[in-house]
Amino acid sequence: MYGLIGKMRASRGQRDAVMEVLRASTSTGALPGCLSYIIARDPADADAIWVTEVWTDAESHKASLQLPEVQAAIAKARPFIAGFEFQVETHPVGGFGLADAKTG
Amino acid sequence: MYGLIGKMRASRGQRDAVMEVLRASTSTGALPGCLSYIIARDPADADAIWVTEVWTDAESHKASLQLPEVQAAIAKARPFIAGFEFQVETHPVGGFGLADAKTG
Repeated sequence: MYGLIGKMRASRGQRDAVMEVLRASTSTGALPGCLSYIIARDPADADAIWVTEVWTDAESHKASLQLPEVQAAIAKARPFIAGFEFQVETHPVGGFGLADAKTG
Repeated sequence: MYGLIGKMRASRGQRDAVMEVLRASTSTGALPGCLSYIIARDPADADAIWVTEVWTDAESHKASLQLPEVQAAIAKARPFIAGFEFQVETHPVGGFGLADAKTG
């Protein structure tokens, strides 16, 4: 499995707008190879958003960025994103809450 | 919801042992209030483990630490854990891959 843990910063006051775009584009679970995609506020940092992702493999994640619905979400959110402050790749091995992946 | 993103460091060469304890204690999904608990290797840091957690609330997480099976896992893993390097609390709002919580 392939994972990403990232912190992004919304433009001042735009966090909820960014989170809603992320949520709407991922909550259906229709992205092939996506096992988990969780969007969270940082309670100690007013404009910060944490996104934790698990994919079957790096290729699935990369391919998702080309999907029309993901491209649309990126275009919609981009004006409200000030930057990315932290990102780490991980290799998830298991646990609880990993969905069954849809095949592409 | 209540979330935690943390990085722990295993003693040299003990990462797999620590991960197996974490995996065994969480993969059944029997922890009340646990919505997601994912254990991952850091591919760029040989002894590092990332754990990302989502709970219904902070109280569920706190209560889990008192469960006999969790106490046993902590006791089993502790000798192989060198330290905790990073931890952030989050407030997850949604996404994909959040399990239904069991009630306690």
